[in-house]
Amino acid sequence: MNSFGHKFRVTTFGESHGFGIGCVLDGVPAGLKIDEEFIQSELDKRKPGKTKFETQRKEDDVCEILSGVFEGVSTGAPIAILIKNQNQKSKDYENLRNLFRPGHADFSWFFKYGHRDHRGGGRSSARETAARVAAGAVAKLLLNSVGIVIESGVYSIGNVKAQNLDFEAAKTSEIYALGNEDDMKKVVESARNSHDSVGASVKVVAKNMPKGLGEPLYYKLDGALGEILMGLNGVKAIEIGEGVNASTMLGSENNDEITSEGFLSNHAGGILGGMSSGQDLELTVHFKPTPSIFKELKTVTKQNENTTLELTGRHDPCIGIRGSVVCASSVAIVLADMLLCNLGSNMSHIKKVYDISI
Amino acid sequence: MNSFGHKFRVTTFGESHGFGIGCVLDGVPAGLKIDEEFIQSELDKRKPGKTKFETQRKEDDVCEILSGVFEGVSTGAPIAILIKNQNQKSKDYENLRNLFRPGHADFSWFFKYGHRDHRGGGRSSARETAARVAAGAVAKLLLNSVGIVIESGVYSIGNVKAQNLDFEAAKTSEIYALGNEDDMKKVVESARNSHDSVGASVKVVAKNMPKGLGEPLYYKLDGALGEILMGLNGVKAIEIGEGVNASTMLGSENNDEITSEGFLSNHAGGILGGMSSGQDLELTVHFKPTPSIFKELKTVTKQNENTTLELTGRHDPCIGIRGSVVCASSVAIVLADMLLCNLGSNMSHIKKVYDISI
Amino acid sequence: MNSFGHKFRVTTFGESHGFGIGCVLDGVPAGLKIDEEFIQSELDKRKPGKTKFETQRKEDDVCEILSGVFEGVSTGAPIAILIKNQNQKSKDYENLRNLFRPGHADFSWFFKYGHRDHRGGGRSSARETAARVAAGAVAKLLLNSVGIVIESGVYSIGNVKAQNLDFEAAKTSEIYALGNEDDMKKVVESARNSHDSVGASVKVVAKNMPKGLGEPLYYKLDGALGEILMGLNGVKAIEIGEGVNASTMLGSENNDEITSEGFLSNHAGGILGGMSSGQDLELTVHFKPTPSIFKELKTVTKQNENTTLELTGRHDPCIGIRGSVVCASSVAIVLADMLLCNLGSNMSHIKKVYDISI
Amino acid sequence: MNSFGHKFRVTTFGESHGFGIGCVLDGVPAGLKIDEEFIQSELDKRKPGKTKFETQRKEDDVCEILSGVFEGVSTGAPIAILIKNQNQKSKDYENLRNLFRPGHADFSWFFKYGHRDHRGGGRSSARETAARVAAGAVAKLLLNSVGIVIESGVYSIGNVKAQNLDFEAAKTSEIYALGNEDDMKKVVESARNSHDSVGASVKVVAKNMPKGLGEPLYYKLDGALGEILMGLNGVKAIEIGEGVNASTMLGSENNDEITSEGFLSNHAGGILGGMSSGQDLELTVHFKPTPSIFKELKTVTKQNENTTLELTGRHDPCIGIRGSVVCASSVAIVLADMLLCNLGSNMSHIKKVYDISI
Repeated sequence: MNSFGHKFRVTTFGESHGFGIGCVLDGVPAGLKIDEEFIQSELDKRKPGKTKFETQRKEDDVCEILSGVFEGVSTGAPIAILIKNQNQKSKDYENLRNLFRPGHADFSWFFKYGHRDHRGGGRSSARETAARVAAGAVAKLLLNSVGIVIESGVYSIGNVKAQNLDFEAAKTSEIYALGNEDDMKKVVESARNSHDSVGASVKVVAKNMPKGLGEPLYYKLDGALGEILMGLNGVKAIEIGEGVNASTMLGSENNDEITSEGFLSNHAGGILGGMSSGQDLELTVHFKPTPSIFKELKTVTKQNENTTLELTGRHDPCIGIRGSVVCASSVAIVLADMLLCNLGSNMSHIKKVYDISI
Repeated sequence: MNSFGHKFRVTTFGESHGFGIGCVLDGVPAGLKIDEEFIQSELDKRKPGKTKFETQRKEDDVCEILSGVFEGVSTGAPIAILIKNQNQKSKDYENLRNLFRPGHADFSWFFKYGHRDHRGGGRSSARETAARVAAGAVAKLLLNSVGIVIESGVYSIGNVKAQNLDFEAAKTSEIYALGNEDDMKKVVESARNSHDSVGASVKVVAKNMPKGLGEPLYYKLDGALGEILMGLNGVKAIEIGEGVNASTMLGSENNDEITSEGFLSNHAGGILGGMSSGQDLELTVHFKPTPSIFKELKTVTKQNENTTLELTGRHDPCIGIRGSVVCASSVAIVLADMLLCNLGSNMSHIKKVYDISI
Repeated sequence: MNSFGHKFRVTTFGESHGFGIGCVLDGVPAGLKIDEEFIQSELDKRKPGKTKFETQRKEDDVCEILSGVFEGVSTGAPIAILIKNQNQKSKDYENLRNLFRPGHADFSWFFKYGHRDHRGGGRSSARETAARVAAGAVAKLLLNSVGIVIESGVYSIGNVKAQNLDFEAAKTSEIYALGNEDDMKKVVESARNSHDSVGASVKVVAKNMPKGLGEPLYYKLDGALGEILMGLNGVKAIEIGEGVNASTMLGSENNDEITSEGFLSNHAGGILGGMSSGQDLELTVHFKPTPSIFKELKTVTKQNENTTLELTGRHDPCIGIRGSVVCASSVAIVLADMLLCNLGSNMSHIKKVYDISI
Repeated sequence: MNSFGHKFRVTTFGESHGFGIGCVLDGVPAGLKIDEEFIQSELDKRKPGKTKFETQRKEDDVCEILSGVFEGVSTGAPIAILIKNQNQKSKDYENLRNLFRPGHADFSWFFKYGHRDHRGGGRSSARETAARVAAGAVAKLLLNSVGIVIESGVYSIGNVKAQNLDFEAAKTSEIYALGNEDDMKKVVESARNSHDSVGASVKVVAKNMPKGLGEPLYYKLDGALGEILMGLNGVKAIEIGEGVNASTMLGSENNDEITSEGFLSNHAGGILGGMSSGQDLELTVHFKPTPSIFKELKTVTKQNENTTLELTGRHDPCIGIRGSVVCASSVAIVLADMLLCNLGSNMSHIKKVYDISI
């Protein structure tokens, strides 16, 4: 089950240390201009090794479109994208062949499948998210055609929070910070210097939302966002609108009253009954600290013998930083799918597309 | 899209004020003893009107099995379950025909579908969750056959938290409280007396988990839980294991070390890389306060004219209370599906089921 | 897996001798007028016991809509339809509890599921097709809104063929014959009088087809028709356009040339590359003779002991007759799904539905 | 919708004249030995240009496994396979940019998508079937592990039929003939020499079938075979067992009686009620003549102006020949999926896989 979406359907493949990773996008409407430079620019935002706040594994992550685009435009055929692996050091992982890294998928993968590619997490590596970013880039091209814009940034690292939500600043920040960049950087550096890692949270906003995206009752907009984001490497909590805080509020505080000018507040985060209300979509995503740290950890071998792990290799001290890029891509994939799923929700669509006079 | 699951597939139908609600369960293995009394007992836990902390709309919610069971045992055919509506007062809703209740699906449904059943929220009513509880009951019968047990309870209401997690106490508590029941009750009564409502959070635990449930990469266990729970009426945040807190921690604090005796901690909440680790599954679900309150609220008509809404009718002052039952049912549906989806994940299953000598 | 379709999704449930049968229709666009009398009239065409050429089991097959329709119009919520069983004589089947009827699903069901409802074929009974006819009726309402019309009739019984394809005559024929009705009737009577049954073939036509329905590459229009029709009780062959005959032809004979006035022939049966060409859709469906005959047949018990079966009960002498109604319903379900799946196939649909200026 | 299957899920991508074609196989059980030479040998059977009875377009069709296999064994991760295009002569197609080839998908694709890759049929080219053969090869590896064997051959070309069904002979025949090879070859040569093409039919058999494969009610074994085969380029009819002939038979002739030694006949072609009976699976598939012929044909331009087409390029005179290879691969894909879908059909599977004492 390596696919997401019903109409805009993303299937990804590939491992951290294999030939490469990639995706097949099924359901992209024909006639969409596929801007390859834009896709590459999205991959560049996520690619590792850009700053000292990231893993030093440098990979160019060059996007190759294998199919589905003819003379720069989508044809309705599936769009396959390949990103070759370039800078793997599989030797770094040889000592992991027989043991499980705490906090990683190694343990559960082994018991599920009985066999694993131990190099860099194999299929479970966050490297897969590069394919998701490529898919998200195509999703954004589709969303942009109806005006939807998605932005994201790092809201907190450790206990340091941004005081404001400056999505413009996040774009040029080395750590995609929404504010308080210097303090956040210090937290990352401090973790790295002590051979440790640190958690972070990310905000995502989608603006200019149409009303009515989301499919009740088991593919609601919030449900689908919950699935894709909670399934993202390292994510342990998701909040929509008021989120956790809503559970402490009174109804009179949390309700968003409506006037002919629009809603008076947005505690709901842009979703009512699983469908978009037309207000901004507002999400918060919580990342755990990178499990790969350079401190000795107790673990066991495949034979369940006690041992310890002293990690080598190159790792992000804070996965939430690059994760903020992937969150926006993930939201784009969901919204692109919802945009297409929504077609046919009422008879006016049938009439418009099949040109029936009313 | 009113279905959930791939192998244990639940399709629900019905509205708050129509003939009834129900579900069709596809994929239940043949040969499972279907204990109708157990299904009814689960519905009884969720049914409204049992205590003064719930809506006073009383409905017996009698479960009728229409198909798929022969001589008390599942046949492999789809199991259809019908729950007739009994105590609807559609007149209570006549004034809502032309306006949108703040905090409800009315607004987004109307803009998506152009037409709605305004009585009691129609399809968007939390009444649908009775069908989900019936489905969850069958899921629990399947899960019990491999020893998995699911428990839930209310962890907080407003700002009052349980000091401990006593799932046994929750079973007999009028408000399913995990602790601190009296203080929580006071919060509910206070909200109700002031014509208001209040939010709550719920804990769910699944014990005796097999290792390896969950399908990477786009139907991970945490992803699927994220979808079904975030799509539940009134839920605004989900946490797994440490949840939100993980984003403030260091890797050395959050990693769960492993020894030959087992894990030394469970910050992960029982999921690694989207697959169960064999540890207890631990979830926290945050419910917003009931949007239906008895205070005047600003809203608009379908024609976008300003008006106000003064609600009548019978409503839960705190949806999280009955929500705790539905959370456990929802988790059961996910786990039953994962139990079946996992079949065939490795060749040893093929060998066992098709009796091939190794 | 009791569902068909991706956007217009039909899930059926129920057994021959249980409470009843029914379906849940998910994805019906909101705003479609649901004409209950039309649905009932479709069920009436299929219902058993109307003439001496059918089983004498009389059932009224009354359609009850349980959900999804408000004030006569679809709401976007799933439409559940229930048809209660009325005239089962389960005793007729008591002798079948421990043995397998040749030509029926009894044998394979038992080995798959280990347990079965032996009464009247249980879930495998062609009684399920009543639910399919109800679903097909709603599909037809949707198709009619864009002008598509579906017709069917019996083309041959045994070795007697209709000399022409008079779909109007078929509507009023007791055996839905497209021509040569009297000769066909004689074949049925002859088979029945000798305690036997007889095969038949059916033609289905869909007129006023839009161009481009069908989803390459693995949900082509011909593929989807192949699935639903080949999966219909008793069907052993499907032909589209020239069908079997095409395998004996030269390319110069089989190609349909095109002029500005349209195609010069329709050997293709209205489908090119899995997508509708706008020409009439033309199908032939071949039904085997009813396996239930009143002659002694060799069979075995569940314990694999030799025995014989002398059938009692009431059975159609020629399932192809009522099958012709179900074929049209099945085609309607496929076309309704394709009509909805096609939405979003190109950017012009996005522009029309989301009102983007070009 | 470029995917097939539920558990063994095949997604294909690529066009005739693009970078290449390929597939992603999701759901292959971990621990299956992936024999790359076998996959290549299957591709070699289908590859064009081997004999004078095929297109002279020569392509090596080299299989590259991009992911999902580690140290020769499947890991549970998706297996991506790429086959680069090598011998395209896109210029041959330049004259087709603005017109529709009769009998091809050009017409319907254009009206569906508004835009097409005109080179060699683009996505609609039968070149896609190379990806299907690669997928089918992996399916066969899985099926072989439980003993299932699939064979196919050409049964008729034009009006010449094989007198017997010699599947061994077919393996070494230049035209995969099941018998009467010389006469069949003459038909092909005659068609080619007159710048024409000719239709053909293919038989497929699967031996050593387990009982109970196939998922009633809407993913029956016959239904799924109907979908994949009817969706294959150029196929216009499918027969199972007696097929068309069944519609002319009496029940007493067509029923397969059962004894403790097994069935006394196999008119059913190995499927009862949509599930395998354990008898051999027997299918007949009818291919139309190649639409690409070297005779002038009437057609229209995109602007619906009359014109004529005089085809150049390299084309198979009889697509049924190489089609026989693809039919077997298609059946393998269906059976592999059914083998996995069947897991969990009854509680004994749950008990075996999860090791529960009974």
